[in-house]
Amino acid sequence: MQGQAQQQAYDRGITIFSPDGRLYQVEYAREAVKRGTASIGIRTEGGVVLAVDKRIRSELMERTSVEKIHKADDHIGIASAGHVADARQLIDFARQQTQVNRLRYGEPIGVETLTKEVTDHIQQYTQVGGARPFGVALIIGGIEDGEPRLYETDPSGTPYEWKALAVGADRGEIQEYLEDNYSEAMDLDGGIELALRALGSVNDDELSPEGVGIATIDAESEQFMELTNDETEEYLSELELLGGGDDETEPEE
Amino acid sequence: MQGQAQQQAYDRGITIFSPDGRLYQVEYAREAVKRGTASIGIRTEGGVVLAVDKRIRSELMERTSVEKIHKADDHIGIASAGHVADARQLIDFARQQTQVNRLRYGEPIGVETLTKEVTDHIQQYTQVGGARPFGVALIIGGIEDGEPRLYETDPSGTPYEWKALAVGADRGEIQEYLEDNYSEAMDLDGGIELALRALGSVNDDELSPEGVGIATIDAESEQFMELTNDETEEYLSELELLGGGDDETEPEE
Amino acid sequence: MQGQAQQQAYDRGITIFSPDGRLYQVEYAREAVKRGTASIGIRTEGGVVLAVDKRIRSELMERTSVEKIHKADDHIGIASAGHVADARQLIDFARQQTQVNRLRYGEPIGVETLTKEVTDHIQQYTQVGGARPFGVALIIGGIEDGEPRLYETDPSGTPYEWKALAVGADRGEIQEYLEDNYSEAMDLDGGIELALRALGSVNDDELSPEGVGIATIDAESEQFMELTNDETEEYLSELELLGGGDDETEPEE
Amino acid sequence: MQGQAQQQAYDRGITIFSPDGRLYQVEYAREAVKRGTASIGIRTEGGVVLAVDKRIRSELMERTSVEKIHKADDHIGIASAGHVADARQLIDFARQQTQVNRLRYGEPIGVETLTKEVTDHIQQYTQVGGARPFGVALIIGGIEDGEPRLYETDPSGTPYEWKALAVGADRGEIQEYLEDNYSEAMDLDGGIELALRALGSVNDDELSPEGVGIATIDAESEQFMELTNDETEEYLSELELLGGGDDETEPEE
Amino acid sequence: MQGQAQQQAYDRGITIFSPDGRLYQVEYAREAVKRGTASIGIRTEGGVVLAVDKRIRSELMERTSVEKIHKADDHIGIASAGHVADARQLIDFARQQTQVNRLRYGEPIGVETLTKEVTDHIQQYTQVGGARPFGVALIIGGIEDGEPRLYETDPSGTPYEWKALAVGADRGEIQEYLEDNYSEAMDLDGGIELALRALGSVNDDELSPEGVGIATIDAESEQFMELTNDETEEYLSELELLGGGDDETEPEE
Amino acid sequence: MQGQAQQQAYDRGITIFSPDGRLYQVEYAREAVKRGTASIGIRTEGGVVLAVDKRIRSELMERTSVEKIHKADDHIGIASAGHVADARQLIDFARQQTQVNRLRYGEPIGVETLTKEVTDHIQQYTQVGGARPFGVALIIGGIEDGEPRLYETDPSGTPYEWKALAVGADRGEIQEYLEDNYSEAMDLDGGIELALRALGSVNDDELSPEGVGIATIDAESEQFMELTNDETEEYLSELELLGGGDDETEPEE
Amino acid sequence: MQGQAQQQAYDRGITIFSPDGRLYQVEYAREAVKRGTASIGIRTEGGVVLAVDKRIRSELMERTSVEKIHKADDHIGIASAGHVADARQLIDFARQQTQVNRLRYGEPIGVETLTKEVTDHIQQYTQVGGARPFGVALIIGGIEDGEPRLYETDPSGTPYEWKALAVGADRGEIQEYLEDNYSEAMDLDGGIELALRALGSVNDDELSPEGVGIATIDAESEQFMELTNDETEEYLSELELLGGGDDETEPEE
Repeated sequence: MQGQAQQQAYDRGITIFSPDGRLYQVEYAREAVKRGTASIGIRTEGGVVLAVDKRIRSELMERTSVEKIHKADDHIGIASAGHVADARQLIDFARQQTQVNRLRYGEPIGVETLTKEVTDHIQQYTQVGGARPFGVALIIGGIEDGEPRLYETDPSGTPYEWKALAVGADRGEIQEYLEDNYSEAMDLDGGIELALRALGSVNDDELSPEGVGIATIDAESEQFMELTNDETEEYLSELELLGGGDDETEPEE
Repeated sequence: MQGQAQQQAYDRGITIFSPDGRLYQVEYAREAVKRGTASIGIRTEGGVVLAVDKRIRSELMERTSVEKIHKADDHIGIASAGHVADARQLIDFARQQTQVNRLRYGEPIGVETLTKEVTDHIQQYTQVGGARPFGVALIIGGIEDGEPRLYETDPSGTPYEWKALAVGADRGEIQEYLEDNYSEAMDLDGGIELALRALGSVNDDELSPEGVGIATIDAESEQFMELTNDETEEYLSELELLGGGDDETEPEE
Repeated sequence: MQGQAQQQAYDRGITIFSPDGRLYQVEYAREAVKRGTASIGIRTEGGVVLAVDKRIRSELMERTSVEKIHKADDHIGIASAGHVADARQLIDFARQQTQVNRLRYGEPIGVETLTKEVTDHIQQYTQVGGARPFGVALIIGGIEDGEPRLYETDPSGTPYEWKALAVGADRGEIQEYLEDNYSEAMDLDGGIELALRALGSVNDDELSPEGVGIATIDAESEQFMELTNDETEEYLSELELLGGGDDETEPEE
Repeated sequence: MQGQAQQQAYDRGITIFSPDGRLYQVEYAREAVKRGTASIGIRTEGGVVLAVDKRIRSELMERTSVEKIHKADDHIGIASAGHVADARQLIDFARQQTQVNRLRYGEPIGVETLTKEVTDHIQQYTQVGGARPFGVALIIGGIEDGEPRLYETDPSGTPYEWKALAVGADRGEIQEYLEDNYSEAMDLDGGIELALRALGSVNDDELSPEGVGIATIDAESEQFMELTNDETEEYLSELELLGGGDDETEPEE
Repeated sequence: MQGQAQQQAYDRGITIFSPDGRLYQVEYAREAVKRGTASIGIRTEGGVVLAVDKRIRSELMERTSVEKIHKADDHIGIASAGHVADARQLIDFARQQTQVNRLRYGEPIGVETLTKEVTDHIQQYTQVGGARPFGVALIIGGIEDGEPRLYETDPSGTPYEWKALAVGADRGEIQEYLEDNYSEAMDLDGGIELALRALGSVNDDELSPEGVGIATIDAESEQFMELTNDETEEYLSELELLGGGDDETEPEE
Repeated sequence: MQGQAQQQAYDRGITIFSPDGRLYQVEYAREAVKRGTASIGIRTEGGVVLAVDKRIRSELMERTSVEKIHKADDHIGIASAGHVADARQLIDFARQQTQVNRLRYGEPIGVETLTKEVTDHIQQYTQVGGARPFGVALIIGGIEDGEPRLYETDPSGTPYEWKALAVGADRGEIQEYLEDNYSEAMDLDGGIELALRALGSVNDDELSPEGVGIATIDAESEQFMELTNDETEEYLSELELLGGGDDETEPEE
Repeated sequence: MQGQAQQQAYDRGITIFSPDGRLYQVEYAREAVKRGTASIGIRTEGGVVLAVDKRIRSELMERTSVEKIHKADDHIGIASAGHVADARQLIDFARQQTQVNRLRYGEPIGVETLTKEVTDHIQQYTQVGGARPFGVALIIGGIEDGEPRLYETDPSGTPYEWKALAVGADRGEIQEYLEDNYSEAMDLDGGIELALRALGSVNDDELSPEGVGIATIDAESEQFMELTNDETEEYLSELELLGGGDDETEPEE
């Protein structure tokens, strides 16, 4: 009961500190991230892999409208998890930053620079009153000076750099799978396979090509590319993960 | 009791996260959508069909004043469900976007573009304080590059693309009917019939021509058109759904 | 007790959704409408009839100061019910719209156009914080393209078109009377008689000429006109509704 | 207890509707009016009479500083009851309107026009947040087109026209006295006598010349004039109402 | 307990009406006035006398820093009681008004005009949100057209004119003393003596010259002047009120 | 319990009056002053002495960073007690005033003038919403027209002039000591000795040179000067107050 | 229970004083600092040492993304502890100040000047409403006029100067260790060793080179430099603190 009452005290109005120094609205926003289906990012020697769970609510819904992988610039892709409408706002913000950078400096924006511009934007919504935090986490991957880079932005506005990470539903399990199986010496192919096996590990090792989204940013070409359904199916079949298309479940809101 | 108290904590002031990461005001706005009579959208090879339940409160009320189907541009129609006054605001916003697009780019706006401009507008009302979310869902259908497209906007500001969908009262039942009976190979006629049968399925298979609104956007002509009462009656009689006009019930507020 | 507590949670600050998707401040504003004396609108082939109950608090009060029928333009009249001071604001707003239309387009405003400009104005007060909704309903009647039109605006900002309707106290009973006795083929005279009989039905079939206000907008002349007391008395005596002048009661606030 | 809790729910922040459609802050402002000493207005064929109770807190207070009768323009006077500081604001507002009218149109403002400009101003304070309603009622009397006119403004911002009325303390009793004794055929003298007898009726039929303020606006001269103490004494002595000067009581705040 | 709860309901946010029509924040501000030491104003034929209790917290405090008598203009003085910091704001405001008047009209401001400009300023702080009322009462005395005038401003923003008055601590007793002993035919000397005797009446008839502040505005010279300690001592000794300097007590905050 | 509840009622939002006329937020700010270590000001014939307790939290903290004595201008020094970060804001404000005065009038600002500019600034934070009061008290000492002057500003924004005073922790005891031992005929040396003895009186008569800060503003040179540790040590040893350096305690926050 | 209730009363809206003169939101922000891993600053004769605990959540996270040591200018470094996203805001602010100083004055900013510009910025967020305090503490070290200087900024906006200090988790223990072992006569090498031993004292005397960040600002070169992993490993091995890399724990949020 007491915990109940205590929590309520920090839910109103603006984002303020609790007696133990936590920002409850930010922590609740992290719960919103967990309500979204999983997204995975893996950094390999050959580039960055982004993989997302695209489960849908109804077979009549177009899977293409489940936008969880976004191209931010030629050399940068973003995977999101959590509150979809919030994600769109941040993606728009990120795209503006990449364009401004090209206009102002005549060159593509660095992955770290972009990440920090996004997290600084997120932070403002956690300190200044009159708005709520963003209920979304982003995985920002790309090539900077020829090197693959992989970042996470969380609802507090903190940037983290990763070798491989998961956000959204089942984060704990997938992250554990990644830690057990990740090796730095993978190429892009190996990254895609690790991502799919990680996603499979929390789906009874059955995935449909349509229920999964895969994108890569190749370290050499420095180009963002999305896999076609056929390409995805080939990987799944090779990995013996190919399952029925019956994956409708209650999706993220 | 506890759930009761917990809920109340998230109802005040602005739209904030609950401990489990939900935005209660947005979820309550979804309830406002369910309080409205049903609207249906169906994408066929021949174009898009919009169909709405136009039940009225009193036989003295003009059915034409139950505005649930709106022409947004020559090639785009919108069906709404939920809080009527809110719907008017969003429709006005959508119409401005279509006009701005024609002025600025000299060509009709894309259906997806329009949908996302509307959902981004909706999202603002869920994050920035000083206003409540929109209590309405829109079905936006139209022709883009010769292809029929069908989208939904919900109170969270998320855009979804659909083959066929229902919003408003009885959404669950109608959506199930659509899933059981939808086939992609339908023409416009087939779409109209499916829509009417779906509406009939939650109305004891009896509909009056006046109690139903039908509009199509033909894939070839790319023109929004509304069916006359006579045309609707013909369909209903053919489908053996023609019922008495005694359909006054407590309508959406 | 629980209902009590639940209600209180939605009364504070701004107009927000309740868990079942309702806007309590808007519903309370509807109660304010019911606290006002009744107003009636009837559409006939010959034009529109507006009729209002003008009960007063004291015989020393001038009945002319009970302003419930307002001329918005030559061809449009408005009857109101509810919070009198709020009604004045909306009437002023409506009159500005009619004048702007004449100035800008050189022609009288359409009845539907005017209604929607008023309801869009009302809607703003239900969504954006810092103000309460309007506690008033308007019946807007007039001639558009030679055709009589009759609309209602309610506190949610929804426009409805009617053949005949009542707002304010005893709305339920009067509306029922109208439904039982309305026929589209009436002329203005018939409309006046129906309105008076409807008002009489909730006043023991006794009305005083001073206690009733009647206005018409003739479909041919397209002119708003108010009946004199003598004219009203003639109708009442013909209808055997002529009662004593002893009608002081607690009026609307 | 429940009523207690319910009331508290509507007292905070801004002026909002209660579940039964009332604006509590406005109703409480009406209580503030009742806390002020009585003011009376009477319309006669010969002009308008304003009469006020000028009781004071201490014999050392100057009665002239109890400002309850105000000249708004040559042809318009205003009597107030309630929160004195609020009254001053509205009187200032009214005087500005009279001057603006003379400047803009080159003629004196109409009594009804002035009243409605004041009530529209009052209404704003009951709908838009960030301020409280005015805790004062005004009686506005004057000559318009040669005719005496008498209006009331209340805290909701509603204008009423009257033949005779009382506001402030003992409103109920005095109004009843006026209803029993008013006749339209009075001249100014008769109006002054009725006002004094009405005031006496709630003061044990004893009034002091200093404790009463009287002003008239003559229908012919169209001039606002205040009675001197000697003139008032003459009336009181004639009416056998002349009492001791011992009238100090707790005055309006 | 109930009264307790009721009070709390009106303490928050802005100045709003209680169910019985009172403005609690204004009434609490009046309590702040009572927490200040007493100030007295007396109007005589020869001019106005202002007298204040200058008790101090510690003998090490400079009595001159207890500013309770202020010169507003050559011909106007102001005595204050209550919240000292608030008084300074109002005195500054008053001085600006006197200067503006001299600049704009080339003549000294009237005492009544100045008082009303101050009270209108005070009223704003009781109606518009975002600030609290002023916790101070002023006695404004001066010469206008050769006549002595004496006014009070209270926290509600009401102006009162007086022959003689007290504000602050012991107001009730001192006012009673003034009522028993005031006569209009006094000269300035008589006014000073009455003020000192009144102050003595609540101080065991013992006052120290330093513990009292006296100022006069002579009706002939129209000049504000403060008495020196020696002059005050002479009066006290003549009146047999001269007491020890041991008057430190808990002063107004 | 009741006191508890009552207090809570006045803690929220803005600075408002309690039923007994107090401003709780201001009184709480006074508690913040008491949480700071003591500061003392003494006015002598030879000038003003400022003395402060510079206790530190850890021996690793630099005592010079305990800024409690500040030079505002050549001829004015300020000692502070209470919330350190707030003190810095007021000191900055004061320094701007001294500079503006020199620029605008070409001469040093008066001590009283400076004090009142600071207190008027402080008062604003106690009346207008959106900010909290300053949790700090200042002792402002300097030379004006050749005369030493000593002032206090408290969190309410009231200016007091003193011969000698203490603020901060142990104010009561130190002030008592000053009252018992102060004499106006001291020179600067005597002032320094009194200040140190007063500080010693609440520290077991043991002070370290580093734990004490001393500044003087000489009446002749009109120059602010701080004592070196050696000079302070000399005084302490002469006064037999020289104690060990072991004075770390929980300092002001 | 009572403490519980009391605390809740000060958590809402803006940063206000509690009855005992504390600013709870600031104190809660201090708790946020303690939730971050430890950071240490040590001033030696040879320059300043900054050392931070860089524990990570997962072995897949890049330690370089745990940004706790920042270069503010050539001659100034900053170590942070607490809410990471807030730290970034303050670091950005600090860097702008250093650049502005170079542009405006053509010389590097002083360490004390920079610290106070940062603390004044922090203070604003504790006094003016509409935002929460910064949940971060900074250690600012650098060279000023050839002298090493070391400062702390805390969430209240108070600047402290130190010889050696710790902030963040285990502050108490580490500070104690520093007090027991610090000597002013250390060179940079000695400072690094003390910092590592202090960090080791709360980590079972086992540290990994990757889990620790070290930076120095040399008094002679006046250059900020970060140690490489190899350099750190050398120190650790020399100090017999070299432990396994198994340091993943729940990091600061």
